[in-house]
Amino acid sequence: MNDRYIAGSTMVDVQSSADSRNIPIQKVGIRGIRYPITVRDRSKEKQETVANVSLSVNLPHSYRGTHMSRFVEVLDRFKNEVSYHTLDHILMETKRLLKAEESHVEFAFPYFLRKRAPVSGMESLMSYDCVISATYGTHLSISLRVDVPVHTLCPCSKEISRVSAHNQRGTISITVGMNKLIWIEDLIEIAEAAASSPVYALLKREDEKHITESAYENPRFVEDVVREVALRLEGMPGLDSFTVEAENMESIHNHSAYAVISR
Amino acid sequence: MNDRYIAGSTMVDVQSSADSRNIPIQKVGIRGIRYPITVRDRSKEKQETVANVSLSVNLPHSYRGTHMSRFVEVLDRFKNEVSYHTLDHILMETKRLLKAEESHVEFAFPYFLRKRAPVSGMESLMSYDCVISATYGTHLSISLRVDVPVHTLCPCSKEISRVSAHNQRGTISITVGMNKLIWIEDLIEIAEAAASSPVYALLKREDEKHITESAYENPRFVEDVVREVALRLEGMPGLDSFTVEAENMESIHNHSAYAVISR
Amino acid sequence: MNDRYIAGSTMVDVQSSADSRNIPIQKVGIRGIRYPITVRDRSKEKQETVANVSLSVNLPHSYRGTHMSRFVEVLDRFKNEVSYHTLDHILMETKRLLKAEESHVEFAFPYFLRKRAPVSGMESLMSYDCVISATYGTHLSISLRVDVPVHTLCPCSKEISRVSAHNQRGTISITVGMNKLIWIEDLIEIAEAAASSPVYALLKREDEKHITESAYENPRFVEDVVREVALRLEGMPGLDSFTVEAENMESIHNHSAYAVISR
Amino acid sequence: MNDRYIAGSTMVDVQSSADSRNIPIQKVGIRGIRYPITVRDRSKEKQETVANVSLSVNLPHSYRGTHMSRFVEVLDRFKNEVSYHTLDHILMETKRLLKAEESHVEFAFPYFLRKRAPVSGMESLMSYDCVISATYGTHLSISLRVDVPVHTLCPCSKEISRVSAHNQRGTISITVGMNKLIWIEDLIEIAEAAASSPVYALLKREDEKHITESAYENPRFVEDVVREVALRLEGMPGLDSFTVEAENMESIHNHSAYAVISR
Repeated sequence: MNDRYIAGSTMVDVQSSADSRNIPIQKVGIRGIRYPITVRDRSKEKQETVANVSLSVNLPHSYRGTHMSRFVEVLDRFKNEVSYHTLDHILMETKRLLKAEESHVEFAFPYFLRKRAPVSGMESLMSYDCVISATYGTHLSISLRVDVPVHTLCPCSKEISRVSAHNQRGTISITVGMNKLIWIEDLIEIAEAAASSPVYALLKREDEKHITESAYENPRFVEDVVREVALRLEGMPGLDSFTVEAENMESIHNHSAYAVISR
Repeated sequence: MNDRYIAGSTMVDVQSSADSRNIPIQKVGIRGIRYPITVRDRSKEKQETVANVSLSVNLPHSYRGTHMSRFVEVLDRFKNEVSYHTLDHILMETKRLLKAEESHVEFAFPYFLRKRAPVSGMESLMSYDCVISATYGTHLSISLRVDVPVHTLCPCSKEISRVSAHNQRGTISITVGMNKLIWIEDLIEIAEAAASSPVYALLKREDEKHITESAYENPRFVEDVVREVALRLEGMPGLDSFTVEAENMESIHNHSAYAVISR
Repeated sequence: MNDRYIAGSTMVDVQSSADSRNIPIQKVGIRGIRYPITVRDRSKEKQETVANVSLSVNLPHSYRGTHMSRFVEVLDRFKNEVSYHTLDHILMETKRLLKAEESHVEFAFPYFLRKRAPVSGMESLMSYDCVISATYGTHLSISLRVDVPVHTLCPCSKEISRVSAHNQRGTISITVGMNKLIWIEDLIEIAEAAASSPVYALLKREDEKHITESAYENPRFVEDVVREVALRLEGMPGLDSFTVEAENMESIHNHSAYAVISR
Repeated sequence: MNDRYIAGSTMVDVQSSADSRNIPIQKVGIRGIRYPITVRDRSKEKQETVANVSLSVNLPHSYRGTHMSRFVEVLDRFKNEVSYHTLDHILMETKRLLKAEESHVEFAFPYFLRKRAPVSGMESLMSYDCVISATYGTHLSISLRVDVPVHTLCPCSKEISRVSAHNQRGTISITVGMNKLIWIEDLIEIAEAAASSPVYALLKREDEKHITESAYENPRFVEDVVREVALRLEGMPGLDSFTVEAENMESIHNHSAYAVISR
């Protein structure tokens, strides 16, 4: 029996009770909740997808806990437009509802793009893993990460071998801090241009021949890939900072080669 | 306050209470426990690794529950020799301790093999995911699964392209039901021989050249791979049944090609 | 240089070449492709989600390979209505395009349901992992799997303890073979009724009190859970077969307890 | 045919060729290689486990690539003693072999500890995920992360409910930057003391009763957990910095609650 129990409308608010340990907490919130969201799309205006979401706030040293259910209320209200232009509203509303000085959100989701095969022109959808993160303390800070699967062919293997060269699927991850809208599509194009070839969901034989031959003309180490992306990102309008990462699922090994540049 | 509470040595055994729903349960047990185990090794006799373990028994319709802690007791006692020759002891002891008619175990673990690079002869370790499963009802039944990473080069891409061919890392999974000891190493050798080339942890330039060129001479679809493995498994002594699966992480797509043969 | 190369419109069809190994392949296809799909919804008619898709066919012993790109063509054409009533079209079209005798599809996706908290009535979305699998050889065979997260409270811990009882999140997985439409929502309701309590995305304090107290009145082992589901599934119209699995992420251990019944 | 090919002993070293893009790379290396390693153990001196390893170096702007195979050579040489006292050798050898100014290693592995159940005294093994990271540029910097599974009981649920309280498995992750050896075991003890109760692999009924009742006496929010750990870490000898993270797999939700403190 719990003798501290107080019935009905006068339930104790344990979270709001005072805390004497004198330790502020940077982030407290929820993680791993899946929600359908609508995101902005460069060509179709909007697209519906499914996100894995985190929401959090700071907690001053004087309070024992935060009110976790309010994060879900915010998420449910804003799920129909998650975009560069609404993140400030989401973050301010989170700060207000949670009575916090700083709020954070993170949406991780697959983003779909209709692509045409290079020769046959046949269309299909490619998916790209994206993460939008944003923080609002005294000012708004937004970052976008896009993981772009690509094809890479090894320059060393090409040089030293009589014929052919080993190649493989790799992933180029670009993360940008931005002060104006940067499209997911723009980052995908930059990544694909830095690889030996883009990859596609649907390819006919004439496309396969084209990719095989053009990749052989464009051999790239992971080191080449991150440098090529860095060159293209420098001076991009709206960009505050970037990190470029390339990881190859090496086809002659059972481990990856990777390279990272941060600015 | 729990008025059904009975102190100390006379605690109620809820699990052993009668169940009137009249429904037997095929399997009840524990899953997802990690334990260090020692397994048999063809060349070194023994190797230590870490397994993800499941243990279960059947539950007759007349009992409400099983005694989960006893599975961990069995595991702790037998962890130092998990092999073809001890599985019957593990399973019989599980049946006895849990008062069951049928018992099941599953050990999933990485297995390490020292391999020499094909030209330089340099040595390093490759890891292979393995699963040993066994069941003891009226008789003992044992199966072994080995996942072997390999290199595959596309026959179609080679045929239609002026130069080169796309290639990638793939995985060949062989699962065998066995009535006498079959070595993990034997299945690895069969899988590697069916691919365009084995893969290695450590390769020098002369090895990379060798693999690139020899894979180009041995192009293989996933369909070729499973058939080649099936041919080699047929008539293998000690083998009751098999399933061969090949999955290529296609380097020109962001999805896999796969093929399966079961006998 | 590849001397077997034949230019342009007369590229060799390597896949269609004859195979002399005399081994038919049960399944050959693609796996791990993500696609946005539209599924049927009991209350809203339709919902959009994102699926991880596999498609495959059998391959007679006389052919060397299948034409993988055609699977993506089928998927792209049918993505806007994946339902009990369209699966036969998808499978027949796959058989026709791939010239096969048997075809298989699998769609794994999160499904969202609007739920009301039990006391406050506040609404939010819960996600449930679902898998629709279907095969068409001589006849159509369809199965549906739903994973339902639930709350379970341990009957043994309740019995033997002076106060409280350990409880945890668990997952109940129901897989049914069906000969007429069975709604995802129906299986979710059956699973939730068999647990100590449903779980929710959004709960206010009055809801939390309600769940805590009602779960204490409904203690359930994994063994109880699978039996309760089995009782409710027996005699369900449209159901050919079922498997019920319950897994608890035990809160006093770092492993799971699980139980399985198949009929 | 590759006309740049030069036979045998005079193969071109593509990686060492000059790069004119003028972009240094922070990290280039290998990732996702599994290797058996031996780590230091407070009570047994040594324990064997399996690690997922990353190794990398910086690459000056003037070189095109690094020599990936040398990372595996270093790993193979040092696998038998990965400890606080050997990390500087591993990192210096990596710098030397790769001709780099800075080197990085990361070993992620399960660590096993023999624990006694609190009442019955029965022994079993618990596994803890650990990550050792280290960097050597001008000086050595080492960090250790330990993920400790624990039991947490909700203070709010206890306060507002007539009986019982929801509880769940959670994970406390402690990451420390250290300038002298800090034992994995010390961090595990700190984490377990901050939770409602430790968790165990093997518990008898008297242990289950003890944990149920004592957790009810020690209710803890994720906010309490990170503050309790922070209090215990402050002033710990050898510690330069720390991050404490707590994540509860909430048993009344299908998402996690989490909190983070960094110093």
